[in-house]
Amino acid sequence: MNIYEIAELAGVSIATVSRVMNDSPLVSEKTKKKVRDVIAQNEYTPNVFARGLGLNSMETVGLICPDVADNYMAVAVARLERSLRECGYNCFLRCTGRDHDGCRKELRELLQKRIDAVVLIGSSYADDDPDSEKVEYIRQAASQIPVFMLNGYVRGSNIYCALCNDYESSYSAVSEMIASGRKKPLLLMNARTYSANQKRKGCEEALKDAGLPVEESRILYISGGVEAVTNHLLREQHPDIDAVFAANDILAIGALKYAEKLGLRVPEDLCILGYNNSQFALCTNPELSSIDSRVDRLCDIIVDTLQLRMKDQPVSSQVYAKGSLIRRGTTDF
Amino acid sequence: MNIYEIAELAGVSIATVSRVMNDSPLVSEKTKKKVRDVIAQNEYTPNVFARGLGLNSMETVGLICPDVADNYMAVAVARLERSLRECGYNCFLRCTGRDHDGCRKELRELLQKRIDAVVLIGSSYADDDPDSEKVEYIRQAASQIPVFMLNGYVRGSNIYCALCNDYESSYSAVSEMIASGRKKPLLLMNARTYSANQKRKGCEEALKDAGLPVEESRILYISGGVEAVTNHLLREQHPDIDAVFAANDILAIGALKYAEKLGLRVPEDLCILGYNNSQFALCTNPELSSIDSRVDRLCDIIVDTLQLRMKDQPVSSQVYAKGSLIRRGTTDF
Repeated sequence: MNIYEIAELAGVSIATVSRVMNDSPLVSEKTKKKVRDVIAQNEYTPNVFARGLGLNSMETVGLICPDVADNYMAVAVARLERSLRECGYNCFLRCTGRDHDGCRKELRELLQKRIDAVVLIGSSYADDDPDSEKVEYIRQAASQIPVFMLNGYVRGSNIYCALCNDYESSYSAVSEMIASGRKKPLLLMNARTYSANQKRKGCEEALKDAGLPVEESRILYISGGVEAVTNHLLREQHPDIDAVFAANDILAIGALKYAEKLGLRVPEDLCILGYNNSQFALCTNPELSSIDSRVDRLCDIIVDTLQLRMKDQPVSSQVYAKGSLIRRGTTDF
Repeated sequence: MNIYEIAELAGVSIATVSRVMNDSPLVSEKTKKKVRDVIAQNEYTPNVFARGLGLNSMETVGLICPDVADNYMAVAVARLERSLRECGYNCFLRCTGRDHDGCRKELRELLQKRIDAVVLIGSSYADDDPDSEKVEYIRQAASQIPVFMLNGYVRGSNIYCALCNDYESSYSAVSEMIASGRKKPLLLMNARTYSANQKRKGCEEALKDAGLPVEESRILYISGGVEAVTNHLLREQHPDIDAVFAANDILAIGALKYAEKLGLRVPEDLCILGYNNSQFALCTNPELSSIDSRVDRLCDIIVDTLQLRMKDQPVSSQVYAKGSLIRRGTTDF
């Protein structure tokens, strides 16, 4: 009988078992009794050496993201690592690529390392349907340790999600865009992630509510950097657009360079809105208007939730932060 | 007697002791004999449970950087993590801020976690003098595990450095700049790190060799983002400059926005050169010329060196990659 089996039988994390063994004031008397009962019933004597090693591996959080070279994820990882370190946690970092297979594999390996909790960063790991079978592996992980999702949503016990209200933020921005006179926005998308799909739905709903058509030909999926986006747009030349809504800032900057090459005035001939309000938005001329998706706030929510959860205190399974429209030179609404 | 004491007595890493215990073909017969002799002399019987836990914590590399939200470091961490994971290593990530105290603290904590190796990312942790006492804590860490430095140089046993030739790259770029007719370059620096100091020396030497004065008033240290740099330059207005050499791309973009606000033509009135050839360089108009500091190559050198070192094969303590000048719209030389 080891600490992991004790934790499982008591229905708590190994961190909690460790805290009970150390009589930590952070654990409720009720939980302490439950754990101590399991220990007593199973004649478990902590091995001093194993306990020492166990404690070493005990306060560890896995950070899983598709690609930390991506600015959004880099900002999230930096903030999560700093805050978690300040709370006494070590962070394992795993970059998985943007698919479920990569995440499943890294999650399985990290669980074998006996981490205490995991944060899944970005919405690549969520499915549009929060009850989808595709994310069953995340629910399975959550049966062992708390799972925190940054801007993704999977329904399940022991899964805690902090999200930007991407649907509402997109709906509201595109509604304003339309009210200012734009009728034919181009939607630039980079992926079919949970978050990207929320943005797309928000845009489409705003068009419908304004009595405008949703044209499939004005919804483009483009991957790659600024140059790839510009070249794609130059190849397809959409004469019939008066605005661009981009799911991230790199896409928007690609559109800005497209406008420059065609001699279009921004925002007069083409207004351009980015998403994430990253550092990139300040590099362009004119500077890029962008929806701030509040990544810092989402990180803070996750760290707060994680700390409460580790103390077995009640926490919400879903918390939203409101995106905010940052107006700069590429829009006039 | 535990695995760590065996490793110390045998003068090898705990990973190597583990490999010898598992009779890994990666360890030389000579090293196997040495380790087995120490084990035999000390009547060491690996505890199966401890050995299991030991193996869990065995293949772990610490990645220490000042701030992973910084694009250069994000790119480095992403590439190192991916390559090391492919070689079977877990990565602990620690962000320390840009001083030795932060690094010393995180290094000490990670050593207690019994990591197998550590990579120090960026030149904040190196001193101009590779024999400086300020970096003695790095030499002490290297007495326990191999230390790898990405673009920093500290002299010492078991320390392996991969560097961009920042001095030569800067010297060569500024020499070309001068040859094309520029006489009064402004040097924009962000820090007094090892690498930044190499860049500055390269610039100064190029000026001297061309018979031009090195004016202290044309060397500025500015921290912060694009806006902070632009505002700083607008406050100080340097009428007497015809070029900018910036130690990173964000500084260069700040200078580009300064030129825009003053109505200066780029590159005709002011030519601007950045450093790192980051994604930011492609966001501006005109696009930014920049020295590619080969961060991907430095990461690959480190991973190759680490693998060889872990197999106790001979490795170089210092490997250089050549920076290369990427010409875009902000320069005309």
